[in-house]
Amino acid sequence: MTTSTLTPDQQEVTRILARFLVGSRYEDLPAEVVHEASRGLLNWYGCALGASRHATVQAALDAYQPFFGAAQAQIVGRPDRADILHAALLNGISSHVLDFDDTHYRAVHPSAPVLPAVLALCEWRRFSGRDLVHAYVLGVEAEIRIGLSVFPEHYDRGWHITGTAGVFGAAAAAGKLLGLDEERMAWALGIAATQSAGLREMFGSMCKSLHPGKAAQNGLGAALMAQHGYTSSTRALEAKRGFGRVMSDRFDPEVITGNLGGQYELMRNMYKPFACGLVQHAVIDGCLQLRKEYGLRPDQIEAVHATVGPLVMELTAKTEPRTGLEGKFSVYHALAAALVYGAAGEAQFSTQSVLDPAVVALRQRVTTTLDPHMRKLEGRVRIVLKDGRELDRHVPEALGTLARPMSDADLEEKFHGLASEVMQRDQAQRLADACWKVAAMPDAGEVARLGATAR
Amino acid sequence: MTTSTLTPDQQEVTRILARFLVGSRYEDLPAEVVHEASRGLLNWYGCALGASRHATVQAALDAYQPFFGAAQAQIVGRPDRADILHAALLNGISSHVLDFDDTHYRAVHPSAPVLPAVLALCEWRRFSGRDLVHAYVLGVEAEIRIGLSVFPEHYDRGWHITGTAGVFGAAAAAGKLLGLDEERMAWALGIAATQSAGLREMFGSMCKSLHPGKAAQNGLGAALMAQHGYTSSTRALEAKRGFGRVMSDRFDPEVITGNLGGQYELMRNMYKPFACGLVQHAVIDGCLQLRKEYGLRPDQIEAVHATVGPLVMELTAKTEPRTGLEGKFSVYHALAAALVYGAAGEAQFSTQSVLDPAVVALRQRVTTTLDPHMRKLEGRVRIVLKDGRELDRHVPEALGTLARPMSDADLEEKFHGLASEVMQRDQAQRLADACWKVAAMPDAGEVARLGATAR
Repeated sequence: MTTSTLTPDQQEVTRILARFLVGSRYEDLPAEVVHEASRGLLNWYGCALGASRHATVQAALDAYQPFFGAAQAQIVGRPDRADILHAALLNGISSHVLDFDDTHYRAVHPSAPVLPAVLALCEWRRFSGRDLVHAYVLGVEAEIRIGLSVFPEHYDRGWHITGTAGVFGAAAAAGKLLGLDEERMAWALGIAATQSAGLREMFGSMCKSLHPGKAAQNGLGAALMAQHGYTSSTRALEAKRGFGRVMSDRFDPEVITGNLGGQYELMRNMYKPFACGLVQHAVIDGCLQLRKEYGLRPDQIEAVHATVGPLVMELTAKTEPRTGLEGKFSVYHALAAALVYGAAGEAQFSTQSVLDPAVVALRQRVTTTLDPHMRKLEGRVRIVLKDGRELDRHVPEALGTLARPMSDADLEEKFHGLASEVMQRDQAQRLADACWKVAAMPDAGEVARLGATAR
Repeated sequence: MTTSTLTPDQQEVTRILARFLVGSRYEDLPAEVVHEASRGLLNWYGCALGASRHATVQAALDAYQPFFGAAQAQIVGRPDRADILHAALLNGISSHVLDFDDTHYRAVHPSAPVLPAVLALCEWRRFSGRDLVHAYVLGVEAEIRIGLSVFPEHYDRGWHITGTAGVFGAAAAAGKLLGLDEERMAWALGIAATQSAGLREMFGSMCKSLHPGKAAQNGLGAALMAQHGYTSSTRALEAKRGFGRVMSDRFDPEVITGNLGGQYELMRNMYKPFACGLVQHAVIDGCLQLRKEYGLRPDQIEAVHATVGPLVMELTAKTEPRTGLEGKFSVYHALAAALVYGAAGEAQFSTQSVLDPAVVALRQRVTTTLDPHMRKLEGRVRIVLKDGRELDRHVPEALGTLARPMSDADLEEKFHGLASEVMQRDQAQRLADACWKVAAMPDAGEVARLGATAR
């Protein structure tokens, strides 16, 4: 009998994954995967730092601070420390507040649920930088494979997959650091499965960021419970009443078990250069290219015409945004701000930027044309200058996609832009340096402690 | 347009429920509901005390103790105290370990997710016994209505409804104690919705008890977050991508919003007299009745014939159990132990009892006949004595069902049987007395503190 004739619950999907996670050695990781882990860590840190003073994080901190245990782990971008479970929760929330964190090319924001759990454990117990990288890579591997085993039906049903799959990533990563054996790793995945949660109805509220926060906290807790002998089903993914069948209308176990160790999902991770939804990235990119190449100033510009795909008009058609958050859902604002400031970072999506008269004036001269054949990450811009010139740029793949990844330097610049909100340049540079050399660090806790700020 | 022509997401289901919870006054509760709260509290306490030294609770305690915050609330049946969130988690687990806790006549174990959250808050902040009763009643109301709005399809899909609905009960009860306004109560329900979880695949593992534990902890956390301004969708129950549609294949919002305050679901709560699955209760009841009426001794009994419905044979057909847990799934053991000991409490489902030669000998003389027309809580026993007599008893409704509820004295006897595992009789009596008079207590924290033990 070949594998493909087995029904999912005849295959030991959960055990096969657990066995891979337990058996994987750091030496198995290709050098490019280790480097990608540094890129992912740096990008994650920037996003978490940039959001660390946001009202969402403040509300969660106010709610949970009276229950913090011993000061075991750092809350990123703040002076506060907490027990590792609360640190994982708070840092998981910070990761996703700006919606500026990484995105696997098919689904799931991979780092937000995993890194907060890994960093907290690395502060509490001594692990090497190699341990950190290895746990991070495996956590992402588990969460993406499990997520894609039910994608897109699971997402279409209404589940926020970054939360529902993320809890497995945190459990797998923490379980690896804790050195769980195969059975306990299967329990950790099971305890994660039975806490998998997060509804898409929460998009637009603070709860969207709660999902990776709870995934980080609950996944970490799952690994700790399994370590202490708390039992679970060892068929949590594949059983009739397990994750795959209950939480989705389709489940493909081969996506989880196929070619384990032969490829790494972290290599298909994308980083956003711009602090808004991916669908606008191509036209922002086009505007920034033209602005740079022609040294454009806003007062030279007569009109901006963008040709975009259907998703841009569905998601970002707000013509008169009034707040920074609304600005993220206005392609008109995004292009105007990019042309005025020469950037599209978090600062360009502040309320101040949205209300800036120069941006507002240019925004009113931006028009859009819908091209139903344009792909999701494609776009075209035509800028008409007052002197009569017309500049045209077609962007088939936006910066930040797998075809045109952000360079290491791009990522570091993005990081500094975000980190500058809460820390001095020299501290930010030490943190960035630690991210780049993390695999060589004897004490991985150092990289977590560098996220502290004085106030 | 009448209500019934509205689609669920046109009705403001979440807001209507939140409004009821916020507006409800203690004075609105009928006296019988207040008395039922005492019965539920006493029964819950016995179950939690009886399980408080179980390996399941110990494993969870070992895993989480390093992260406990300030000693705000009691862990039942132990000397340990913890922050309120961990106390709610641990006590929620204890509640359900023995599967001896209360059961709403249609679905959900109502008290296990709600009371641990309520008691923890009552220790941390000063509330009256009336506040405790009121919060408990409303928590049960919310969780049962929400659970039944998707029952049985939600359960059939594979969700453990005590976990998935329980989190709403804990959130509603905690939100009531914290005095949330309508919008924040709706947020609390939303933050609960987006953490609703628990798979039936976990039945048979320690994770079954984790579900009410996490429901208590996460529901309490949801109310605290809402109190501090953490926002959620206010349409979490009814929206297209909300709880009802995502987590079930049918959702009936009328079950949530109909006749709010006109009846109380706590009045349809059942308490188990016997420490095993409900389906065996009728035949155990029949054996105990005959044993008492005829003063039967095991050595008088030639054979026991039980006539049972299909579920008994599906769930409890184990003929040779070897452990206490297996004994709970053997109707043969259950009847033999009941006839030997004159009881069917937790002690009769210990491994010692399962291996007791007198019980084993009688167990081998128990036979079953399946009657497909017998209802779920019905049964018949015929006991053949060595002297040739045949004793017959038909039990149309087992003791503990709504038709034949356990008396207050029955409940107190059950409580003492369980409490005697961990505390002296005089302390247990003080605790029982506090449960009966809870509505008159000025400080509800007292009833929680009475659950502490010296070791």
